[in-house]
Amino acid sequence: MSDSKADIGVIGMGTMGAMLALNIAEEGFATALFNRTTSKAFGVRDDNPDLAANLHPEETLEGFVASLKIPRVVLIMVNAGKPVDEQIEHLKPLLDAGDIVIDGGNADFNDTVRRNRAMEGSGIHFVGMGVSGGEQGARHGPSIMVGGDKAVWERLQPILEPVAAKYDGVPCVAWLGTDGAGHFVKTIHNGIEYADMQMIAEIYGILRDGAGMAAPDMAKVFADWNTRGLSSYLIEITATVLAETDEETGKPLVDVIVDEAGQKGTGRWSVIEAQKLGIGATTLESAVSARGVSSRREERAEVEKIYADAKTHLPASTFKADAEGLTELEEALETAKIIAYAQGYAIMAAASLEWKWDLPLGVIARIWRAGCIIRSSFLDDIAKAYETGETVINLLQTPTFSGRVSKGQAALRRVVSKAALAGVPVPALAAALSYFDDYRRARGTANLVQGQRDLFGAHTYHRFDKQGPQHHIWPAV
Amino acid sequence: MSDSKADIGVIGMGTMGAMLALNIAEEGFATALFNRTTSKAFGVRDDNPDLAANLHPEETLEGFVASLKIPRVVLIMVNAGKPVDEQIEHLKPLLDAGDIVIDGGNADFNDTVRRNRAMEGSGIHFVGMGVSGGEQGARHGPSIMVGGDKAVWERLQPILEPVAAKYDGVPCVAWLGTDGAGHFVKTIHNGIEYADMQMIAEIYGILRDGAGMAAPDMAKVFADWNTRGLSSYLIEITATVLAETDEETGKPLVDVIVDEAGQKGTGRWSVIEAQKLGIGATTLESAVSARGVSSRREERAEVEKIYADAKTHLPASTFKADAEGLTELEEALETAKIIAYAQGYAIMAAASLEWKWDLPLGVIARIWRAGCIIRSSFLDDIAKAYETGETVINLLQTPTFSGRVSKGQAALRRVVSKAALAGVPVPALAAALSYFDDYRRARGTANLVQGQRDLFGAHTYHRFDKQGPQHHIWPAV
Repeated sequence: MSDSKADIGVIGMGTMGAMLALNIAEEGFATALFNRTTSKAFGVRDDNPDLAANLHPEETLEGFVASLKIPRVVLIMVNAGKPVDEQIEHLKPLLDAGDIVIDGGNADFNDTVRRNRAMEGSGIHFVGMGVSGGEQGARHGPSIMVGGDKAVWERLQPILEPVAAKYDGVPCVAWLGTDGAGHFVKTIHNGIEYADMQMIAEIYGILRDGAGMAAPDMAKVFADWNTRGLSSYLIEITATVLAETDEETGKPLVDVIVDEAGQKGTGRWSVIEAQKLGIGATTLESAVSARGVSSRREERAEVEKIYADAKTHLPASTFKADAEGLTELEEALETAKIIAYAQGYAIMAAASLEWKWDLPLGVIARIWRAGCIIRSSFLDDIAKAYETGETVINLLQTPTFSGRVSKGQAALRRVVSKAALAGVPVPALAAALSYFDDYRRARGTANLVQGQRDLFGAHTYHRFDKQGPQHHIWPAV
Repeated sequence: MSDSKADIGVIGMGTMGAMLALNIAEEGFATALFNRTTSKAFGVRDDNPDLAANLHPEETLEGFVASLKIPRVVLIMVNAGKPVDEQIEHLKPLLDAGDIVIDGGNADFNDTVRRNRAMEGSGIHFVGMGVSGGEQGARHGPSIMVGGDKAVWERLQPILEPVAAKYDGVPCVAWLGTDGAGHFVKTIHNGIEYADMQMIAEIYGILRDGAGMAAPDMAKVFADWNTRGLSSYLIEITATVLAETDEETGKPLVDVIVDEAGQKGTGRWSVIEAQKLGIGATTLESAVSARGVSSRREERAEVEKIYADAKTHLPASTFKADAEGLTELEEALETAKIIAYAQGYAIMAAASLEWKWDLPLGVIARIWRAGCIIRSSFLDDIAKAYETGETVINLLQTPTFSGRVSKGQAALRRVVSKAALAGVPVPALAAALSYFDDYRRARGTANLVQGQRDLFGAHTYHRFDKQGPQHHIWPAV
């Protein structure tokens, strides 16, 4: 770059980094590029001649930094964890007070909080930024969740708004709170994504193993569901995946794919943070756990043999793929989905208090309406539920959703009930129903637990008719 | 102490510390006592004149350390977390190479690993020791899980074996592995305890809300169950708690106890560690989460009102408290309990590999047979399953349990199915069934998830008929 300086620099030309850089360049910003293997950065420019005028690869980190307008904006897109710390360490001596360093990877928000603190006093601003939407989202408009100082956000806004996805013309990017807020919200987004995908997979399992339906027929079912309440990117791509034929075997492609999925990073963290906050997030947990079970494929094959006889004695499935049966599944999935999102939002509400972020939950729904993996019109409903002016304790308490859940719960009950008898696992759907039934009863069963704990550990309990902790002198056991 | 030195010193005269000290003194060991508020240590001696000859309270930490035989053995029984670090910091300058410091509290095993490392090089030995059994266990014989150097264990054995609970005369104490092994196993013990208690509470909920049974009648049911396969301390005390009448109101005591239980510490950690290890531990998770829901009592009351109409339209419960109905619940609980323990043991098996502890899983079952909260003859069955000489991948694969689960699964299915329809929450029972059904099928549904992930994130998938990761060119969505 001889004559002018770049508006922003992107470090890390992996899929997400390269796609974001192209997106930024396309929006007219001069974009410096750097990658440890420098040829990759030059490759990104050379492979995109139409954007080459705005893409400026650099040979060295020093040259990269020198090529940026002051105050500088550097977006790090390297693998989460140690690589981010190493990159910051290399960058820091080259930067000046007033510069902005953005981590746009899937960071553990605890790391983001730590990195924010470590940067304090240097005058350099650190921004933890969650980016969702996969490869295509990064390229053409992701959902962007920004954490850090609000004043810094205002400086980034002119670049990030054009780059972000749009829903009805509104950019899907917002400042959500200080330090780790952006990465925390991205983590919960991914936890909800796990739950949403798991529930869809459970319905797929019911259609396949409970109703004996073939993949191309299921594709039509999901495509139909995508025209109503369940309408969402994940339902849409479910139809796409199920419709695909494998050219080599002529079978549905989904039938030749190995049923093993990993769990790590954000999905796992969402569950861990929920536990730390004392929030029941059983739909997210069961989804992450189900991935763990899926990855033990050899064990499962062994266990199937051991229980072959038991399987033979299962009652015949009563699932039917007729109009009534499909409507029941559709209603059950929609109801369970509302409960899963309510759990996800409950985690964010608790974290917001714990970390003093004052997370704008309605805004979060708004920026998830487009660009990200869980995008859907349903998130517009959530945004509206948060924007009535009433305090929302839990989405299940809002008129927007209580009517739908009241109506849909009967279908969810029948589906969980039939699946239990037929031996089709529905961990997330069952977790959603159990949570709903537990949450909607004023009188639970923890009184027994408290009695037990007082008996064996003198942990004390409370009485309805007295103040303060009580201890009972129990008969000797 | 003028003439002779103490065999061991105990710091921290809270319930567990005081009870353990009395237990040790009763076994004939001269026991030095120290507490920050020194009067408490003198009180422990003065309140126990029959053991006073073996109880030696000290005014200062220096005096306490000076009163111990060399090499010294110091047992710290203070609150987990920072207090332990502070205590170690105060102690360390007073100790010499060869001395042993034991943390007998409910430590996070990650802290224990860290404390072990910090002690390296000083020549002082650090032992993380899990103690289970509540107040009475500590006083008359707890289950003791020891981690640290094996050579150090051999020095502690003469004190710990007499102090520990006995099962058929065999002491319920063992060395389980290096550094954090003892505290890790205690954490999983508590996670299993959460699951066991939650499942019992769910059956209680079915009897109360599904079958309309009164607490004293339930007490008889649990007392009866305690004579067969479910026989255990937790079932026994459930009967005791349910049988108790509140003298003030004349009602069953359990009916006046508030239904709010907290979740923290070990229960939460067990779930977090399971997630980190990628192990599906959904029964433990749903139990910990259910405590979280229980603690939101005001919210629940509000939600009950919102869904009052939906509740009215629930189908009538089909649970019956007749002989057949009770047998079904008994079988369902026993089957779910096996699955919960299998999950707990799967966490330990994974941790053992991850942390290179080589945990003796059969021995762990043996030392849990008495003294601890989950003690039962059932643990003797687990011990036997691990001691056949065959490699155990998962308890559900062992002949000891596969027969029982094959037989009992039908009852578990019916109970989960009826509970779903009747609106009685059974998060842990349903999680157990879903896990079993997921784990016993060779062909799961994660193939759909892998297809979706490849579509939106180019994450690749595997095919049954090819080696290596595959990526499909999907139609545009």
